[in-house]
Amino acid sequence: MNNLLTMSELTECEIAEILQEAQRFADGAIWKSPNQVFAANLFYEASTRTHFSFEAAQKRLGLEVLNVGVESSSVQKGETLYDTVKTLEAIGANVVVIRHPQDRYFEELTGRVGIPVLNAGDGCGNHPTQSLLDLLTIQQEFHTFQGLQVGIAGDIRHSRVARSNAEALTKLGATVYFASPEEWKDERNPFGTYASLDHLIPQVDVLMLLRVQHERHDQGAGVQMQHYHETYGLTVEREQNMKPGSIIMHPAPVNRGVEIADALVECSRSRIFKQMQNGVYVRMAVLKRALSGVKGGIAHEVFA
Amino acid sequence: MNNLLTMSELTECEIAEILQEAQRFADGAIWKSPNQVFAANLFYEASTRTHFSFEAAQKRLGLEVLNVGVESSSVQKGETLYDTVKTLEAIGANVVVIRHPQDRYFEELTGRVGIPVLNAGDGCGNHPTQSLLDLLTIQQEFHTFQGLQVGIAGDIRHSRVARSNAEALTKLGATVYFASPEEWKDERNPFGTYASLDHLIPQVDVLMLLRVQHERHDQGAGVQMQHYHETYGLTVEREQNMKPGSIIMHPAPVNRGVEIADALVECSRSRIFKQMQNGVYVRMAVLKRALSGVKGGIAHEVFA
Amino acid sequence: MNNLLTMSELTECEIAEILQEAQRFADGAIWKSPNQVFAANLFYEASTRTHFSFEAAQKRLGLEVLNVGVESSSVQKGETLYDTVKTLEAIGANVVVIRHPQDRYFEELTGRVGIPVLNAGDGCGNHPTQSLLDLLTIQQEFHTFQGLQVGIAGDIRHSRVARSNAEALTKLGATVYFASPEEWKDERNPFGTYASLDHLIPQVDVLMLLRVQHERHDQGAGVQMQHYHETYGLTVEREQNMKPGSIIMHPAPVNRGVEIADALVECSRSRIFKQMQNGVYVRMAVLKRALSGVKGGIAHEVFA
Repeated sequence: MNNLLTMSELTECEIAEILQEAQRFADGAIWKSPNQVFAANLFYEASTRTHFSFEAAQKRLGLEVLNVGVESSSVQKGETLYDTVKTLEAIGANVVVIRHPQDRYFEELTGRVGIPVLNAGDGCGNHPTQSLLDLLTIQQEFHTFQGLQVGIAGDIRHSRVARSNAEALTKLGATVYFASPEEWKDERNPFGTYASLDHLIPQVDVLMLLRVQHERHDQGAGVQMQHYHETYGLTVEREQNMKPGSIIMHPAPVNRGVEIADALVECSRSRIFKQMQNGVYVRMAVLKRALSGVKGGIAHEVFA
Repeated sequence: MNNLLTMSELTECEIAEILQEAQRFADGAIWKSPNQVFAANLFYEASTRTHFSFEAAQKRLGLEVLNVGVESSSVQKGETLYDTVKTLEAIGANVVVIRHPQDRYFEELTGRVGIPVLNAGDGCGNHPTQSLLDLLTIQQEFHTFQGLQVGIAGDIRHSRVARSNAEALTKLGATVYFASPEEWKDERNPFGTYASLDHLIPQVDVLMLLRVQHERHDQGAGVQMQHYHETYGLTVEREQNMKPGSIIMHPAPVNRGVEIADALVECSRSRIFKQMQNGVYVRMAVLKRALSGVKGGIAHEVFA
Repeated sequence: MNNLLTMSELTECEIAEILQEAQRFADGAIWKSPNQVFAANLFYEASTRTHFSFEAAQKRLGLEVLNVGVESSSVQKGETLYDTVKTLEAIGANVVVIRHPQDRYFEELTGRVGIPVLNAGDGCGNHPTQSLLDLLTIQQEFHTFQGLQVGIAGDIRHSRVARSNAEALTKLGATVYFASPEEWKDERNPFGTYASLDHLIPQVDVLMLLRVQHERHDQGAGVQMQHYHETYGLTVEREQNMKPGSIIMHPAPVNRGVEIADALVECSRSRIFKQMQNGVYVRMAVLKRALSGVKGGIAHEVFA
């Protein structure tokens, strides 16, 4: 069962294979499912980017899509996640993509459902396809991870991106640094060394800015946005000190003027919209991998 | 016009034909619309199971799907159901599937709209495709309805399932029993005899458990869930007294530990997920029937 | 870039071309995109009619559809419209259809995004595809606009329809009259002459009734519906004084018994449901025009 739940479960070799497949799609390769295959998207949290990136990937592969928004689901009737997924399986879904606010929601499912589960984000936990699209974007730029210096700046503690990327990048041979307000440091994450942003700026090949997640913090948390921008954000001045050839990344949606100056979002170093493009290719690769060899669905469709 | 509004309108022969067609789909038959045909799903109440079962059925038949959720509809602007359906017809829908909280909402439509209406549930009234999928599940097991003993347990009064199934099963030659709390008995339903659940357990071939619909009752209605389970639910102990070869059914979503013990939901007698699979096949048959001979839609598509 | 934002931007010749193409679709012409092309529908306001009319048009052209409802979008995370559209472009949308409550929202987008934008309604501003479907309906009836007399009755001030239609009809050679309560007159609209409804009734070839938009006005605005119907609505009595061969139009949804007597909605003069049919054909023409020559999307799909 080719689930994709966390980056930790993937070997270096598996990561390389997924990125290679994704790059083929980026280069224009077309692959369509020979049979009618159903993908269900089960989103318990709103997400334009991730949801529609998965949906575009599914349609590029010729899959049928069932979009189950939480507002239309039996969750309102108190159904468990397990029963909802089993229902989708019974109805004929061959793969399910899930975003859920609870950390490691998927432990309720693994080994108990008959179709692969692709994690599109769990609470403050994991977001493996985001991590893979970041890796693809870096690989397109530098053709290797060995010896790269990567800075991740912002809310390290609550970020799925920081967690997944720091581990994966370290495994692949890069060195990871964090820059973060004191209260957002994450002592449980051993894959990075803390430094000030101004220290990192002239040194890193890749600067990953994290989103300030207003919606996860109290309004009273008191991190003033203007102050945040000056202290932890990529200002126009800081960008001028970046290393030649270095790139800027952000998982989006961007708070313009907070994590990054408005004028830099589409500057020549920025790969922010490139990341979104790569998201579709990575998800095509992950979906194809999940479905290969699957004999599922009510009509026993198989991928050739 | 091949509407499907209630079970009462179907003759025994028509029921048999629909079940036969559904069984062909269950056995792997593939049938695709030769022309571009549009199905509109108009859901005024949330329903994962019914909605996505219809949508999967539509996509298996190669239909185009328009999902009209009430939240995005002009209902918010006070439009009548009739005008909404006429609008969908004008836009090119060739068939419309409707779930609506009002009993017999379809009386506003019959004879006045030019496309077939499939009832996906009206208030506390009818839910004919649920009934048909129940019949298909029973037929797959026993190959006849003649002489079968069927017990239906729970909220008889408010259940669309109890109403539709008791009538259809009686018509087809089965004997129906009800087990229900006093306040949920339904004196208007003449198609069953009341008995205690413990009396029925060793006797029935099919035990249909009904959902306790928290969302339809006051919180203060005072049916305590633990008490309900012990008195009217299928406990682990009761299951052990069931007749050899008998099966358990439930329209879902299940309240685990209320209507049925958690451990029994997927036990060997349970056909609960089988029912959901059959739901897709039955809806394929009903859609194909509704569309046969239809010359509708703005481009005058016809089914061959 | 073949945007369609306002009627003003179209020359007479372009209007004629769009109507001609739409009429071909109305006559049964079929045209499918030779490549996989994605259309995104970004609706910040609910609209059954416009949304599903566009979706039906897209599916008739064989396009893939991404439906971005505001409830599921990152707008909830404070993302700008520009960033949302750029995201859809990065994900692979080849054209985007937008409805937004803000007047001229599209000024934030023009010249800055790489895919065509089709305006499905902006605030109290424009609604060009509604205008085009009205023109198509009139053209089908009278085969010319020269010398036609058109009355538009109702809330002229807040109506996108009044604004777009009055300008376009005047440009095409018709004469436009308005009938409106004093408080809903629109001094900024120079394309019509005010007269009483009873004066217009026996004289006009086309009577366009506007919707009383309850949802845009205060409940306390005090226009009583019964009074409105008698004074500014099309009553059964008024219809009998209409000119032979004249037709009734309404953008819908209709408030039956307010703008128009219930019994007249589907009378022989009414083209209200015909307008909805024509909406699909006009949107097919506008989508095909927007996509012709486009080399967009992540896989560089082109229209042949």
